[in-house]
Amino acid sequence: MAMNGAESLVRTLVAGGVEVCFTNPGTSEMHFVAALDRVDGMRAVLCLFEGAATGAADGYARMADKPASTLLHLGPGLGNGIANLHNARRARSPVVNIVGEHATYHRVFDAPLTSDIEGLAGPVSAWVRTGLSAAAVAADGAAAVTAARTAPGGVATLILPADTAWEEGTGIAAVPPPPERARASDEAVTHALAALRSGEPVLLHLGDRAVRGEGRRIAARIAQATGAKLLAMTSNARIDRGAGTVPIDRLPYPVDPARAALETYRHIILVGATLPVAFFAYPGKPSALAPATCDVFALATPEQDQIDALERLAAAVGAPAEPSLPAGPRPELPGGDLLDQDTVGRVLGAMIPEGAIICDESVTTGRNFFASTHASAPHTWLQLTGGSIGLGIPMATGAAVACPDRKVISLQADGSALYTAQALWTQARERLDVVTLIWSNRSYAILKLELANVGANPGRKALDMLTLDDPPVDWVSLARGYGVEGRRVERLPDLVDVLRGALKRRGPFLIEVAL
Amino acid sequence: MAMNGAESLVRTLVAGGVEVCFTNPGTSEMHFVAALDRVDGMRAVLCLFEGAATGAADGYARMADKPASTLLHLGPGLGNGIANLHNARRARSPVVNIVGEHATYHRVFDAPLTSDIEGLAGPVSAWVRTGLSAAAVAADGAAAVTAARTAPGGVATLILPADTAWEEGTGIAAVPPPPERARASDEAVTHALAALRSGEPVLLHLGDRAVRGEGRRIAARIAQATGAKLLAMTSNARIDRGAGTVPIDRLPYPVDPARAALETYRHIILVGATLPVAFFAYPGKPSALAPATCDVFALATPEQDQIDALERLAAAVGAPAEPSLPAGPRPELPGGDLLDQDTVGRVLGAMIPEGAIICDESVTTGRNFFASTHASAPHTWLQLTGGSIGLGIPMATGAAVACPDRKVISLQADGSALYTAQALWTQARERLDVVTLIWSNRSYAILKLELANVGANPGRKALDMLTLDDPPVDWVSLARGYGVEGRRVERLPDLVDVLRGALKRRGPFLIEVAL
Repeated sequence: MAMNGAESLVRTLVAGGVEVCFTNPGTSEMHFVAALDRVDGMRAVLCLFEGAATGAADGYARMADKPASTLLHLGPGLGNGIANLHNARRARSPVVNIVGEHATYHRVFDAPLTSDIEGLAGPVSAWVRTGLSAAAVAADGAAAVTAARTAPGGVATLILPADTAWEEGTGIAAVPPPPERARASDEAVTHALAALRSGEPVLLHLGDRAVRGEGRRIAARIAQATGAKLLAMTSNARIDRGAGTVPIDRLPYPVDPARAALETYRHIILVGATLPVAFFAYPGKPSALAPATCDVFALATPEQDQIDALERLAAAVGAPAEPSLPAGPRPELPGGDLLDQDTVGRVLGAMIPEGAIICDESVTTGRNFFASTHASAPHTWLQLTGGSIGLGIPMATGAAVACPDRKVISLQADGSALYTAQALWTQARERLDVVTLIWSNRSYAILKLELANVGANPGRKALDMLTLDDPPVDWVSLARGYGVEGRRVERLPDLVDVLRGALKRRGPFLIEVAL
Repeated sequence: MAMNGAESLVRTLVAGGVEVCFTNPGTSEMHFVAALDRVDGMRAVLCLFEGAATGAADGYARMADKPASTLLHLGPGLGNGIANLHNARRARSPVVNIVGEHATYHRVFDAPLTSDIEGLAGPVSAWVRTGLSAAAVAADGAAAVTAARTAPGGVATLILPADTAWEEGTGIAAVPPPPERARASDEAVTHALAALRSGEPVLLHLGDRAVRGEGRRIAARIAQATGAKLLAMTSNARIDRGAGTVPIDRLPYPVDPARAALETYRHIILVGATLPVAFFAYPGKPSALAPATCDVFALATPEQDQIDALERLAAAVGAPAEPSLPAGPRPELPGGDLLDQDTVGRVLGAMIPEGAIICDESVTTGRNFFASTHASAPHTWLQLTGGSIGLGIPMATGAAVACPDRKVISLQADGSALYTAQALWTQARERLDVVTLIWSNRSYAILKLELANVGANPGRKALDMLTLDDPPVDWVSLARGYGVEGRRVERLPDLVDVLRGALKRRGPFLIEVAL
């Protein structure tokens, strides 16, 4: 069957299970776009900005456990997608990141849009390849899918010169099944077992697959048998939470509470988690959060099979078959008019519907949301993994594409929302079932805290750089601009009413919550 | 005088003539922000997105002929600024691009926001350095200013680890005066002279400083003496135009008209211009636009002193002291109701006020705007140099900061405007005198043309990727969201009325022009 390179690439991606392409194409990608017409099985989702496309691919991957593709335009298009590719890299989300490039023979002419795309891609990619010919591009695509799916999951960037898309291709390349995760070593299990039998305080620090749902249940069985404690990482790609799951707290973000949370332990067993380190450095404070006297070691790395490692450890300690779950009651709605971090957290606790996907870029506002939602209806919680703000709205968009039958609730700090609000338009275009809650405090609240943390003593000019009230951003107008209906609420009963209505209907809605 | 590294850096920048910092800071930049409080002479302009900051720095540099600084947050913040740094690189705009980084000792811990900042900076920077200590940071800043000002101007990226900002610094470093431009060789002048005396058709192809105002006058004198023709590059960082200046057309953007424009010449003399090449490659079309039989050579490169080279050539050909300027009448307003590319161009021709700065990201809509504005009131025209869309609104913001007494008119394609519309907020915050005209055709019109140009035959799914009408973007609501007043116009007389009102008042205003 005759087909050009673009079509052979798209057909290969579909054969490899890639069903969605989040696109923001340009001239050099026109043959890829045209190929989408001729290939069934690839849904094209248009984004107005590349950061929306890459963030959506991250959200999609976290929920679908397989890669979507992107379609970006040359170096600058990739540049606009880098911040959310950074988050995807930290979430270990599989992404097939396709970046158009000038035709192979055209690059030497240094046309205005020419730049070093491989150089830009490297820092956010687990794998980078530039296509050399239309004949090879199907194999390149298969290699990209494999690279993205290689545990623990990563960003595979395939750079696609225009002539490799328009010249005659060689058909579809076979995509091998996803590689198996490596098995954790017996030594690691033995080491963990010795720690658990030492009689000294032990923490099971969970991340990646170990923190989701199944891993947490096994960890809880181990904890029950041994007295060890559980703690999630500060930022997690995905946790399945709520009634019927094992409640787990996160390592606090600020350095002092984080150190306090770890200081009693003599052994920290990392399961899918990385070394607990401070998000930022502060004058006079350490970077490593665990006490120097603590033995920190990995039972299973993010690359390894964490579920298998936990099962082996559970068997070794003689853990019970089921964890006893605290049957906490579903939280009740708070009373009064006041909207603050505490009351909005309790509103969420009471109102999260069963099966909801919570995309959380609440930043300061959400630091205690876990406490009020442990016993909510079962739901899935996605966090900002790489610290690069502007993920929330795109991530919610991608999660909604992956799970059309689940309600998505996007918890969004206002300052952060302003990086990639364009994704609201894609929510409207695709009729995605997303309720966005904007925490409108009209400031970079985290920076006001951080300015104090680093010992800087701010004056008016500095505080002006952290304040967003002149002019105030009008989120209802902004949402309307992108085709999404919205409401501003300033009293708690109004939040409850408007949120209830938004949860009942289908389609995107935005609530600006005055804090 | 005791001061920390941040303060010694800011004071050094001010000493080097850097008066404005376009900021989007984060935790690692808090000491730099605090230092702004203690230093007079550095205006801090807050942007909601890094692409707004870098695009504003480009627009500022084009009008001020000196660098502004940026302040960006780690690798992802730099990532968000890359697209407009790419444009600045192609405009050869001097920019001191400051990127915060983790403290030197913290990087090894691979905290979530850690990434390879130098790797990301390289492709868009003429110079990159990572600060090693607070004692050296003032010297680093001086080196960055010098690198940015080295002809023809470039992006100098200084990466600033947090501890180099908060540790004790060593005062202010001296910034040498901007390096002189190199002199074009006598051989180049002799070569050009021979071409002009050959009796064969000669084109003076102008870019960079040669195309602005003074260079164009000298080139016009040469043309008058020799019969040579003048043509500007397709995209130019800055042209001072209108009544009293030498009218000049641009090399067309599409390949076929561009080749037709060049095919009669046997000699093309580049003055500040680069080789004429196709913006993109197309199947079966060449990349180089000049005929193979044509002698294309540089009288003066962008790095060299183009004005001096033109003067030497003018003297050699015995050019008249003054060009005779065609005293074309100021264009009149068109009649009728119809809004299209032609009529809006004629509205601009009639209504551009004296001294206006036109920031042009019109893309397809603006391809013929030059023809209708040659004899407008004197004004300055800035174009999209690097082809990375999303420059216009930020560039207008920066130009208005540089020239508070000049009206800025931002001509903006709607699809492109959606990348960095956040810069409208900065216009409102800083009360900048900018009128934005959104050409609202609700499509990526250029891609519809390009899809045909590359020979792709689009179906519904492909065309969907180029169409922005579902939902339509409501620009008046979007502007209101960012604190900017706006109006939508659908008839030509309404455009004239609303534009007249917007030009009379001060401060930002947006007009959505239905096309």
